[in-house]
Amino acid sequence: MQVTGNLLIGGQAVQGAGVAAHSVDPSTGRALAPEWRGADAAQVDQAVRLAQDAFLAYRNLSLTARAAFLDTAADRVEGLGDVLIERAMQETGLPQARLRGELGRTVNQLRLFADVVRRGDWLGVRIEHAQPDRKPMPRSDIRLRRIPIGPVTVFGASNFPLAFSVAGGDTASALASGCPVVVKAHSAHLGTSELVGRALAAAVQECGLPPGVFSLLTGPGSEIGLQLVRHPLIKAVAFTGSRQGGLALMQAAAARPEPIPVFAEMSSVNPVFLLPGALQARAEQTAQGFVASLTGSAGQLCTNPGLVIGVRGPDFQRFIDTVAEQVSASAPGTMLTAGIHKTYQSGVESLQAHPRVRILARGQEPQGVNQCQASVALTSAAAFLADPEHLGAEVFGASTVLIECDGLDEMIAIARALEGQLTATLHGQTADDDAWMQALLPELELKAGRILVNGFPTGVEVCHAMVHGGPFPATSDARTTSVGTMAIDRFLRPVCYQDVPSGVLPEALRDDNPWGVAQRQF
Amino acid sequence: MQVTGNLLIGGQAVQGAGVAAHSVDPSTGRALAPEWRGADAAQVDQAVRLAQDAFLAYRNLSLTARAAFLDTAADRVEGLGDVLIERAMQETGLPQARLRGELGRTVNQLRLFADVVRRGDWLGVRIEHAQPDRKPMPRSDIRLRRIPIGPVTVFGASNFPLAFSVAGGDTASALASGCPVVVKAHSAHLGTSELVGRALAAAVQECGLPPGVFSLLTGPGSEIGLQLVRHPLIKAVAFTGSRQGGLALMQAAAARPEPIPVFAEMSSVNPVFLLPGALQARAEQTAQGFVASLTGSAGQLCTNPGLVIGVRGPDFQRFIDTVAEQVSASAPGTMLTAGIHKTYQSGVESLQAHPRVRILARGQEPQGVNQCQASVALTSAAAFLADPEHLGAEVFGASTVLIECDGLDEMIAIARALEGQLTATLHGQTADDDAWMQALLPELELKAGRILVNGFPTGVEVCHAMVHGGPFPATSDARTTSVGTMAIDRFLRPVCYQDVPSGVLPEALRDDNPWGVAQRQF
Repeated sequence: MQVTGNLLIGGQAVQGAGVAAHSVDPSTGRALAPEWRGADAAQVDQAVRLAQDAFLAYRNLSLTARAAFLDTAADRVEGLGDVLIERAMQETGLPQARLRGELGRTVNQLRLFADVVRRGDWLGVRIEHAQPDRKPMPRSDIRLRRIPIGPVTVFGASNFPLAFSVAGGDTASALASGCPVVVKAHSAHLGTSELVGRALAAAVQECGLPPGVFSLLTGPGSEIGLQLVRHPLIKAVAFTGSRQGGLALMQAAAARPEPIPVFAEMSSVNPVFLLPGALQARAEQTAQGFVASLTGSAGQLCTNPGLVIGVRGPDFQRFIDTVAEQVSASAPGTMLTAGIHKTYQSGVESLQAHPRVRILARGQEPQGVNQCQASVALTSAAAFLADPEHLGAEVFGASTVLIECDGLDEMIAIARALEGQLTATLHGQTADDDAWMQALLPELELKAGRILVNGFPTGVEVCHAMVHGGPFPATSDARTTSVGTMAIDRFLRPVCYQDVPSGVLPEALRDDNPWGVAQRQF
Repeated sequence: MQVTGNLLIGGQAVQGAGVAAHSVDPSTGRALAPEWRGADAAQVDQAVRLAQDAFLAYRNLSLTARAAFLDTAADRVEGLGDVLIERAMQETGLPQARLRGELGRTVNQLRLFADVVRRGDWLGVRIEHAQPDRKPMPRSDIRLRRIPIGPVTVFGASNFPLAFSVAGGDTASALASGCPVVVKAHSAHLGTSELVGRALAAAVQECGLPPGVFSLLTGPGSEIGLQLVRHPLIKAVAFTGSRQGGLALMQAAAARPEPIPVFAEMSSVNPVFLLPGALQARAEQTAQGFVASLTGSAGQLCTNPGLVIGVRGPDFQRFIDTVAEQVSASAPGTMLTAGIHKTYQSGVESLQAHPRVRILARGQEPQGVNQCQASVALTSAAAFLADPEHLGAEVFGASTVLIECDGLDEMIAIARALEGQLTATLHGQTADDDAWMQALLPELELKAGRILVNGFPTGVEVCHAMVHGGPFPATSDARTTSVGTMAIDRFLRPVCYQDVPSGVLPEALRDDNPWGVAQRQF
């Protein structure tokens, strides 16, 4: 299967009419064939109109048919096999094992959403039967279900070329909800995007769905990305990327004549609080786990641990020493793009230049272009609290700041000074640690979407109770998650049906319940 | 119980330091004693800081204690009795029976939310136990609950001085979720607001809660209202009012350094589709029910039916004639404020001036100031489709536009041309009507939050399956409702707990389930 450089507009492979672009091998800086031409305004409009045309039929598919489509999509993506992995390696510099794991996750995610669709409880059906004899007024028959909101545009993420990209969690959850999807491919992995896009388009065709259910466009985010967000037929936006990028989309969506929701997952430093008992018991072991979490995928993970807080003393010092030693020995990893590498370097330089920060260790010297040289910085709680904006800013890549504090009060003060986060981590061992956790938990709950104990935040389980979300700026909407089955909720809205005759009621709301979905009676 | 003209800041009655204001009796245009002074910037800040101070304790109350508070609040509001009704009549011009009904609804709403709190399923608890032996990677113990987002500011509505105001649905649902509330009273009913506010503050005190759980401020929306929305400690906004007002709040919230959600319920014309069989069977009867819905409360209801679509012919003509006759005989009703009356008049004048609209009937001549003279206009589907923006614009008050169309296709075209609505209504009788309904329902679902058959949209049931919401501009967030128990969802966000030791886990998430809440296992 060859990469062609085409867009996919409603199942048709077409050449873009916009500006030229190509992917780059970040390990060499060399351009990869073929050349793409991005979509022009007419092609963007066409993709969105086809999505709208497909919407009515697609949203009214039976649950079985929609689930079968997601399963077919999983099969088709899985079937891409080595061609996909090789292209993704070339385009992202990520190692094979990581990409194979990510492909598995992507495929499993599609299948999980197929299961979710079949189960049907996301429809949120509620039924209140009429009470004709109620005094002083009879009650009507009142029923509720959730319906999809309309065509969704998904922005592929740079750092998960499979799991947060063309057929990733945003696309899977939007398609599961009944929304057609127009994906804006990330410019860093155009070939990977095309291959996955063709698998999805094949699944659409194989299942006999209207072709507008899925389109894949390429082109500059500042042009076709904004055009998509501003298109009147687009009803929601899903994005994973930088804070700057997410904010631009939020502003564009809020400025529309009809504002629409943006689900942007943006920036997080994922603080790790090491409590005294845990440090005493296993400082070195924790340091080893920490460095693995910090440096994996060259640190280019939304949940990368960028801040570690411990109590000054010999135990935290053992942790610090081990981290410094391990990071010094860490091999440089190729970053996703030259732009990300440059931003990483300037982030580390900015820490280095900070008067109250000391760089403790750097990873091994880069041997090639765009390589991430890991960085560990050290500061004090007082310094952090005096400048949380800079010291708590995300440096995307394998950079972390260790903070020495005096005790629980300073830990709480740091928790309060934090911006919104995807995750907050606690390491504890003893009963005293548990008491500290109980004091920190209520603070961290207000700052993070996920709180985890004795682990590291990287490696997000795709499951039913997962929250990959959190208060701004971690995301644009703390009431949602972009990983896990609750991600489907983002694309649904409730509709109430009052005294609608049973023959006219949608299947899910009927008393004979032909779809067999959960119907909550009140 | 005397109205004092004070603000309520964290339980303390204090004189405002801002600009002077007073309520007006809209039936006479005369000022009502006492004088208020609005909050100044320092008082707004103080109320919000007290709300934040109260937040940690209030959000962690047991479900029983929080429910008891809501029940106590209901008792205290109910206990205001005639003093409240009389003041509300003076300030709003609404009739006694309507206000007594609204008081009942307000009190029942608080008690319903107490029940919701006790039941605890709004916590959305999900539990996925660890799978230590899973291959290739063990699974962590992962649990989820929803927590309140933080202090909420509620804007009292003009048209429901009790049920959508100080202790109305927004306040009740925010308090139920665990969020402290700072209410900005509507300037049209300051005394009513103060009385209800004192009842809530008394309940806070009686239940031993931190006083910042509830505050009541008065002052210009363009000043203290915006200050509240921009305050960094405010985490959500609930508003019922004009499109212009709602948009101003949405823009202010989106422009904050940390954007926050705004739940604004704004504008809707609530189209009513009269299908041929229903008109043939009961044109006159339907017209009578329609006029009662149109003119009740001088038409000042969010769900007032402002658009009626029927097929041109003798049956729709019988409906039109009866509506014209009944409206001509309808007595003028005092409107809530001089401003609303003026906007109503200019809305009707604008319809009157439209070249393709004919005013069919007006209600009886007003006898006093600020009275709503009902209006029925007639136009064609072609005219509507040529100018949906003007002919589909809300005229707040007893004004409606009847549209003659040629058949189902034009009805569908009208449905497609509509903006987002709170409601859409269908009247049908025969099997043919059912077929039309089946064609119209999928269109109307995309436009409205509630679809009802053979009734009228006014009179919104406060229940579990209600949606008082809908696509923009009906509301700012179609994924929510401001009436019914699902209104609580607006103020909650999910938090995931991964491998948190059972002794540290919040009660609702523990395996021994001390609160006895629904725990969904996966």
